Amino acid sequence: MPRLKDTYPLYLNNKAAQPNTDLEVTDKFTGEVAFRTALATPEIIDRAIAGAVHATEPMAKLAGYERQAVLQHCVDRFKERFDELAYALCVEAGKPIKDSEGEVTRLIDTFRIAAEESVRMYGEVMPLDISARAKGYQSIWKRVPVGPCSFISPFNFPLNLAAHKVAPAIAVGCPFVMKPASKTPLGAIIMGEVLAETDLPEGAFSILPATRDGADLFTVDERLKLLSFTGSPVVGWDLKARCGKKKVVLELGGNAAVIVDRDADLEDAIERIIFGAFYQSGQSCIGVQRIVIHENVYDRFRDMLVEKTGSLIAGDPKDRDTFIGPMISEGEAQRLKGWIDEAVDGGAKLLTGGGCKGNMLEATLLEGVHKDAKALNEEAFGPLAILQPFSDFDEALAEVNRSTFGLQAGVFTRDLFKMFDAWDRLEVGGVVINDVPSYRVDNMPYGGVKDSGLGREGIKFAMEDMTEIRNLVIRRN
Amino acid sequence: MPRLKDTYPLYLNNKAAQPNTDLEVTDKFTGEVAFRTALATPEIIDRAIAGAVHATEPMAKLAGYERQAVLQHCVDRFKERFDELAYALCVEAGKPIKDSEGEVTRLIDTFRIAAEESVRMYGEVMPLDISARAKGYQSIWKRVPVGPCSFISPFNFPLNLAAHKVAPAIAVGCPFVMKPASKTPLGAIIMGEVLAETDLPEGAFSILPATRDGADLFTVDERLKLLSFTGSPVVGWDLKARCGKKKVVLELGGNAAVIVDRDADLEDAIERIIFGAFYQSGQSCIGVQRIVIHENVYDRFRDMLVEKTGSLIAGDPKDRDTFIGPMISEGEAQRLKGWIDEAVDGGAKLLTGGGCKGNMLEATLLEGVHKDAKALNEEAFGPLAILQPFSDFDEALAEVNRSTFGLQAGVFTRDLFKMFDAWDRLEVGGVVINDVPSYRVDNMPYGGVKDSGLGREGIKFAMEDMTEIRNLVIRRN
Amino acid sequence: MPRLKDTYPLYLNNKAAQPNTDLEVTDKFTGEVAFRTALATPEIIDRAIAGAVHATEPMAKLAGYERQAVLQHCVDRFKERFDELAYALCVEAGKPIKDSEGEVTRLIDTFRIAAEESVRMYGEVMPLDISARAKGYQSIWKRVPVGPCSFISPFNFPLNLAAHKVAPAIAVGCPFVMKPASKTPLGAIIMGEVLAETDLPEGAFSILPATRDGADLFTVDERLKLLSFTGSPVVGWDLKARCGKKKVVLELGGNAAVIVDRDADLEDAIERIIFGAFYQSGQSCIGVQRIVIHENVYDRFRDMLVEKTGSLIAGDPKDRDTFIGPMISEGEAQRLKGWIDEAVDGGAKLLTGGGCKGNMLEATLLEGVHKDAKALNEEAFGPLAILQPFSDFDEALAEVNRSTFGLQAGVFTRDLFKMFDAWDRLEVGGVVINDVPSYRVDNMPYGGVKDSGLGREGIKFAMEDMTEIRNLVIRRN
Amino acid sequence: MPRLKDTYPLYLNNKAAQPNTDLEVTDKFTGEVAFRTALATPEIIDRAIAGAVHATEPMAKLAGYERQAVLQHCVDRFKERFDELAYALCVEAGKPIKDSEGEVTRLIDTFRIAAEESVRMYGEVMPLDISARAKGYQSIWKRVPVGPCSFISPFNFPLNLAAHKVAPAIAVGCPFVMKPASKTPLGAIIMGEVLAETDLPEGAFSILPATRDGADLFTVDERLKLLSFTGSPVVGWDLKARCGKKKVVLELGGNAAVIVDRDADLEDAIERIIFGAFYQSGQSCIGVQRIVIHENVYDRFRDMLVEKTGSLIAGDPKDRDTFIGPMISEGEAQRLKGWIDEAVDGGAKLLTGGGCKGNMLEATLLEGVHKDAKALNEEAFGPLAILQPFSDFDEALAEVNRSTFGLQAGVFTRDLFKMFDAWDRLEVGGVVINDVPSYRVDNMPYGGVKDSGLGREGIKFAMEDMTEIRNLVIRRN
Repeated sequence: MPRLKDTYPLYLNNKAAQPNTDLEVTDKFTGEVAFRTALATPEIIDRAIAGAVHATEPMAKLAGYERQAVLQHCVDRFKERFDELAYALCVEAGKPIKDSEGEVTRLIDTFRIAAEESVRMYGEVMPLDISARAKGYQSIWKRVPVGPCSFISPFNFPLNLAAHKVAPAIAVGCPFVMKPASKTPLGAIIMGEVLAETDLPEGAFSILPATRDGADLFTVDERLKLLSFTGSPVVGWDLKARCGKKKVVLELGGNAAVIVDRDADLEDAIERIIFGAFYQSGQSCIGVQRIVIHENVYDRFRDMLVEKTGSLIAGDPKDRDTFIGPMISEGEAQRLKGWIDEAVDGGAKLLTGGGCKGNMLEATLLEGVHKDAKALNEEAFGPLAILQPFSDFDEALAEVNRSTFGLQAGVFTRDLFKMFDAWDRLEVGGVVINDVPSYRVDNMPYGGVKDSGLGREGIKFAMEDMTEIRNLVIRRN
Repeated sequence: MPRLKDTYPLYLNNKAAQPNTDLEVTDKFTGEVAFRTALATPEIIDRAIAGAVHATEPMAKLAGYERQAVLQHCVDRFKERFDELAYALCVEAGKPIKDSEGEVTRLIDTFRIAAEESVRMYGEVMPLDISARAKGYQSIWKRVPVGPCSFISPFNFPLNLAAHKVAPAIAVGCPFVMKPASKTPLGAIIMGEVLAETDLPEGAFSILPATRDGADLFTVDERLKLLSFTGSPVVGWDLKARCGKKKVVLELGGNAAVIVDRDADLEDAIERIIFGAFYQSGQSCIGVQRIVIHENVYDRFRDMLVEKTGSLIAGDPKDRDTFIGPMISEGEAQRLKGWIDEAVDGGAKLLTGGGCKGNMLEATLLEGVHKDAKALNEEAFGPLAILQPFSDFDEALAEVNRSTFGLQAGVFTRDLFKMFDAWDRLEVGGVVINDVPSYRVDNMPYGGVKDSGLGREGIKFAMEDMTEIRNLVIRRN
Repeated sequence: MPRLKDTYPLYLNNKAAQPNTDLEVTDKFTGEVAFRTALATPEIIDRAIAGAVHATEPMAKLAGYERQAVLQHCVDRFKERFDELAYALCVEAGKPIKDSEGEVTRLIDTFRIAAEESVRMYGEVMPLDISARAKGYQSIWKRVPVGPCSFISPFNFPLNLAAHKVAPAIAVGCPFVMKPASKTPLGAIIMGEVLAETDLPEGAFSILPATRDGADLFTVDERLKLLSFTGSPVVGWDLKARCGKKKVVLELGGNAAVIVDRDADLEDAIERIIFGAFYQSGQSCIGVQRIVIHENVYDRFRDMLVEKTGSLIAGDPKDRDTFIGPMISEGEAQRLKGWIDEAVDGGAKLLTGGGCKGNMLEATLLEGVHKDAKALNEEAFGPLAILQPFSDFDEALAEVNRSTFGLQAGVFTRDLFKMFDAWDRLEVGGVVINDVPSYRVDNMPYGGVKDSGLGREGIKFAMEDMTEIRNLVIRRN
Repeated sequence: MPRLKDTYPLYLNNKAAQPNTDLEVTDKFTGEVAFRTALATPEIIDRAIAGAVHATEPMAKLAGYERQAVLQHCVDRFKERFDELAYALCVEAGKPIKDSEGEVTRLIDTFRIAAEESVRMYGEVMPLDISARAKGYQSIWKRVPVGPCSFISPFNFPLNLAAHKVAPAIAVGCPFVMKPASKTPLGAIIMGEVLAETDLPEGAFSILPATRDGADLFTVDERLKLLSFTGSPVVGWDLKARCGKKKVVLELGGNAAVIVDRDADLEDAIERIIFGAFYQSGQSCIGVQRIVIHENVYDRFRDMLVEKTGSLIAGDPKDRDTFIGPMISEGEAQRLKGWIDEAVDGGAKLLTGGGCKGNMLEATLLEGVHKDAKALNEEAFGPLAILQPFSDFDEALAEVNRSTFGLQAGVFTRDLFKMFDAWDRLEVGGVVINDVPSYRVDNMPYGGVKDSGLGREGIKFAMEDMTEIRNLVIRRN
């Protein structure tokens, strides 16, 4: 069994620093303080940004193989420290140990993909002689790093959603300052520990736990050229308004839907939907919140879902049998519990679950939820899924699109015309056929439309955002 | 000689409308009112946005060949109305007639490129089976139109900089509302007239002259999904802060520099630099404002420049011999005249020009300008260029980079190592070798870094911004 | 009604020449001589090749817009001469007039696509610094024209299959010599007439009707750098062995199959399959020869097919009501009639058709054909289709793959898993879902595997074959 | 010091087999038998091909991560066996130990690049609705493995030139049979040993030393779908004529030239040119054979070259100080010695070298060689370089192009216009600026034009050749 330390540093300009131990981080299951970390002050953040500015040119000058070596070092070290990383997630995020291991596996994937992409930043040779005035001209463009980046990452995937910012930044040669979630800073801190073993130019990275109040420089400092934020919609859109001239990437939330059509393999679908809805207590931007089921199979599928959901094991995330662990905080559990109650008050039927103790909320299924209920329209971000029947596929698509969000959607169908219709018409970043919206592989383009965000992650897509096209025009005569 | 009408309509949801004739547009050379156009009220803008929302789905459903046909119709009609379009520019912008004709030629290029690109919106098939957990999955992504767009275009290229928004929007299938510059609305209005001849879905486009005060919906209305603005930096960055959830493309200004190295062909360079500095009275985002000359050739090149500049013919833009016409307004001419005077007061030497009558400012060359002078550091956007010597190429690159702007830069050199150094190190969107920064072909990636903007235009690049990646993941078992 | 001339020239080094009138071309329906053309001698072919060599450098130097202008001129002229071109096809190929018009439409598409692609020959900027030994190196590659090309085109699409060689050659800047099919030279000759109106460099093209015996230089002359042949497999593979150092593209034949699964919309499928099987008397490389039908719908679909096939109108191709015209020659009709008889002798059931007068062979359907029969396994290239039942989709895929050919295959199904299985497993160049293998759009990648050929056409794909990658490596230190 | 075994097996269908020890392989420096390997009979080759056919489908079905794992295993094992591999090269090829180590480094690069590319085989989504007849159609294409491949690799890079076939084949999922050079089979055999440690499907690979006489199946067997040959031009072009329906990739030789312009840094150029000309005794397809020097610097550069060449240490390749080792055989040394003598007899001046003992030929420089001499026009493939003066850059380009070969060319110049001229006009696969034609990084496109071959290697380029485009067209209505 891995052990955690009592205190952890922050990383300022590539080096560990322990100016204080002001941030208490609890074990989310026991509620006890698990460890303490340093908390960055605005002055420290300012020094980190200055360091990043200083590192801009040396980072841009690194050869591809040098950037690749840094990322490969991370891959190797994450493999070596696999158990420790998983355990850290389990403690600080309350994430069931198997899911924690799954996240570490994906962390490794993410860095490996970035290592591979780091030597593949292609540019283009373009003919310019498209009209007489351009005879003798040609264009060659490449991508150059955008400069110092500001990263803010969320609590629900403390490693992999940080990795989706850190790894492409290193792959393209951008220095960065990162603020991990205050509730779960350890994943990013260990990442910093591993990066500190490399010979990245000084100032290339800082990992700075900070309170929201003290972290404004991450948003407003004009020395930072890109802000990449993963977190809640409300916070994200506010940052966009306040971030000055920066490029902005926002990976926000949603209330993802899955459609189960009448020709779906229900046995297969149920496994995936249970996973999609209740995996890490539904605390995923793409967790299944809405299950839109063809009326012909509705009753049968509801019964299957209820039975299966009722049998999920809740408890200590460190226990390998646990499927449902705690939510990130009691406040969050209460918030969602309130929505459930409100929905029931509004006429919804509670099919299973609904109970809540502290931050342990039961896996919950509702049906007959009012169209205007918060539980249906806002982001649940917890173990709640709502069943809705449909009679016509177009109607199902419209119901999915009724959301103000648009991250991913799942469709269980065998019908290729419906697959293409869904791809054409669902207002989301990704349509997943025969699986839940919750599915993601770390190289694929990932990100939302509507209120769910701006831009795409998925290494090579993130790398595009972290670079500028720089054109070279040559006139010959 | 083409003739202009007395009044012009606006275009609301594909149709001409003449609710009023409230906008007076002057002939910029004579100062007299040349024609009047309708002025859109907030209520009209609101209806246009509603129409664009309504047109979103029909626009997205247009087949490639249908979008291409619309753009080809524009190409054909612009060719037929070539002289009229050029004359309109000459009157409303005070642009010398030859330059006006050049802009119409480029307008046609821009629409033709868009017609060609409209059937080339490629997506990608991606393997997802990069790790065991993704076995049996694959990804296919395509681009879909982002939805209703908001376009604000500037006075200096009333046709072609509007075209760089309109043409790609049609190419991808986005409806749009456009606010042309109030001083030069006619180019866009004629574009609207031509578009109205096509059978684009109702609401696909509105061309709405408006006062800045009444045009806030272009910025803040959340039904609009993208804001593409070309204009001044101050306005642009403010819009970014106020535009809500929209994607933002900003094509702002700069104080572009050209380097003349000691091995340059001076005879050749002088022709291009005169063009780059004084073309349409320097009212171009990429007009040459700073000429950085190797000390070995400085004196000779300065003398050549002074002589050549002194011989430029200023006068009526309708006259084919005129090289230097009026600036867009007397206020603008006075503003720049003030900067020149301030520079001279600060120690600069006036090499030629400097005189100003009404909105006619002479082509002006300065040397010895103080490092902090407005004339050197802010955007002149008029017929002013400043000479600076350098002794070492790295020093020249640093001087170019000293600017807060970064649109394009030119380098006259034969040395390939310097060419690659400039490409690596100049903080701009484009480096032009053996020509001025003012050079642009309409298919190339074009746009700035630092204070000069966000994003790239150049049809296929603009089309990327006007679309979202929509991924399709298929799970097979 | 357009009229043809009595005699036509050949085109030698861009110019019409009439050294003789030795090639008699018949009206395929009446059998009478319709016109005569010049026939190229080996000496003339040799001069054409010399001209092409001479034109190599000037062709390579043409600017993109110049190549585009040539192709656009062709588009414009083909539109103007639409009726004449269609009539020429109808006469020389015996192609029903509606199909002839369809081919002219596609000819125009093909040249328009090429015009658009002619300014889009992109290259790539590649990082080379993937290991320490390559630090400071980078690579930029582009495509350059391969040089003089040799084209041999077939009788069944005298215009469009010639266009798929001519148009990309002009788009990339390769001179060429073309031998059109002796039975149908007129399409290519008119293309030559139109090209002769342009100012392509002398030697850029020659269109040379020739007998097979006198045409060996097209294959063996080492001054020619690429041989692109469309025609019969036997001839094609022999050319490959004899063509020396040339690159080779072979678009050969097949015995294309279509699968009709039990969930297919039979009403819809029948329209497409009748078209695919009997369009221009089945004389298409991708004509439907094998119809593989799920046993559950076999009887019903057979009856529908028999009824519909029996009602097809055969007769004079100049008549707008005619669906089935003559085959290219009596010999070809007799050859296929012999295969049908042989199949019936071997136990097959003749469902409809089978009659033959001169070169008019009836639209014919067989079932129960022996697995080894020529009619099933070799290329019918005429109005014959063979029905086969299947019980399991895997079995259907295997039956399609049993062929030695592999050009395209069609699958009528709604099942997305079957669609992806077919894409994964059918050994063909293209799988067409919900349509016949006979479907082609002129920009898509098109070409066969196994005995059906080598390489892909479809403008941008053909352009890749007609170019060489030329890399530029730069070492900086 | 690593030790070699006395005998080595062949690899038949993934397994070691020792049917005989019929192939004697000598230490190229001592001339003594170093070890013996099994020699494949035609019957064994036939079984290997049958195995490859059998492995086609299982190989195609491997997931990307499974192919990547095989390649990564090779990378890891090659690193572990680095010294042994280098020593094997040193013995069997007589390659100086430092160069042998360099080759092993590149072998590892090549497999690593392939591991990375193995999960990056992208396809494309193409709009088909370019005209009314294609409304509702779309196309998606991907690449599928071509099937069993036949590989024949040369003696001069026994590891890395075999790797350039083996690694991309595994990356795409093609089984293969490989015939390594009989004089240097050990590199490929060890590669087989490492591959045999993986769980590739049975039949995925066979490594079969064979005599040329007994190896005809590699060329003629129609079960093999692609022939990739690296070796001499005479053999290569003959194989092309005899290889039936296979796709063909030929990486043949050349008489590569480097241009030294008057503005070149001569001190820098000399280091690189000595390397390019005499590295592994010039036995490289891209070894420098012709040095074309501007007349202004000719004398000085010649003297520098002569001095430097005279000081190269020749001797035992196992000695770390050795620069010039033996040629592959006495016959080859005698052949080239004969050409040198013939050139001198024809009027050439021997500047240095020319001596020959056994297979040790001195590093040799000639000038004044007759334009028709074999030494200038044919492939030397040994330690010979010929100096030629030029007065005008165009003349230098023409001299380079006078060759019947066209693999790579080097140009030492600082002039960017000359760089672009060279890129436009040199008839080669690659132009190397400021370095010798002998430079190659293993990811870049590499291959020749004219008599130097067909196709490009460089992993992703080779992968394209080893795949077929398979299109998917979907009709929706």
